[in-house]
Amino acid sequence: MIVNEGLELLTEEQARALLASGEVGRVGITIGALPAIFPVNYRVVDGSIVFRTSPGSKMSAAAEGAVVAFEVDDYQLADRSGWSVLAVGRAEIVHDLELAFKVLDAQLDPLVEGRRTVIVRIEPTFLSGRRIVHEGAVSAR
Amino acid sequence: MIVNEGLELLTEEQARALLASGEVGRVGITIGALPAIFPVNYRVVDGSIVFRTSPGSKMSAAAEGAVVAFEVDDYQLADRSGWSVLAVGRAEIVHDLELAFKVLDAQLDPLVEGRRTVIVRIEPTFLSGRRIVHEGAVSAR
Repeated sequence: MIVNEGLELLTEEQARALLASGEVGRVGITIGALPAIFPVNYRVVDGSIVFRTSPGSKMSAAAEGAVVAFEVDDYQLADRSGWSVLAVGRAEIVHDLELAFKVLDAQLDPLVEGRRTVIVRIEPTFLSGRRIVHEGAVSAR
Repeated sequence: MIVNEGLELLTEEQARALLASGEVGRVGITIGALPAIFPVNYRVVDGSIVFRTSPGSKMSAAAEGAVVAFEVDDYQLADRSGWSVLAVGRAEIVHDLELAFKVLDAQLDPLVEGRRTVIVRIEPTFLSGRRIVHEGAVSAR
């Protein structure tokens, strides 16, 4: 267990499990040369992060072919605990119908109404995670 | 009220109020030419976002002088409600002792242990926010 300045570095396996357990994550993209972060509800399908967006949206334009960051976390302020996972990889719009059906089977229903007919897929090239540890505390998993 | 594809665009005043109410946000920075997003607990002091990090950390190196994105959100999956606020602006390390004392007065205690003696300040140049609206529903605020 590597602990650096109060943060335990998770293994890739732990990070992958936490990523798969999340519901809402944040995508970091560049729009008009400026950085932006937007929340999306997502699933992990075949090892890739998938979410839905609108055709013609800034997200769909910015995500296509770009290397993006994707972050998911969970914090409990009450006991000062929490973890975060960061995935970095190339985003692409899904044109493969077979994958599209898998995404729909994964019950990825956008929280937001409107046409969300574009599926974006991020294949994590780098995956890392960290968890808050307090001195004397034992990691729960 | 501007609604686009199920999202209501918030006014800058609403976005500012939600930003000030948050506890944990996410900073989007670039590390080694790759995008990254890290959670931080933060406060708003004198209109700027402030958080603490470690001297010599990737965060302190990447944030100094860079234009960064900062996002805060809150989602309730149960009733499919939620909002997010995005701030974009230049980050800088605080050297001004007066501001540093204000930050400490704001009870900005890092969730994470370790030396968090660097204060990073982001002055939001652009501020925007959006809230999920469902057809027929009336905005709560």
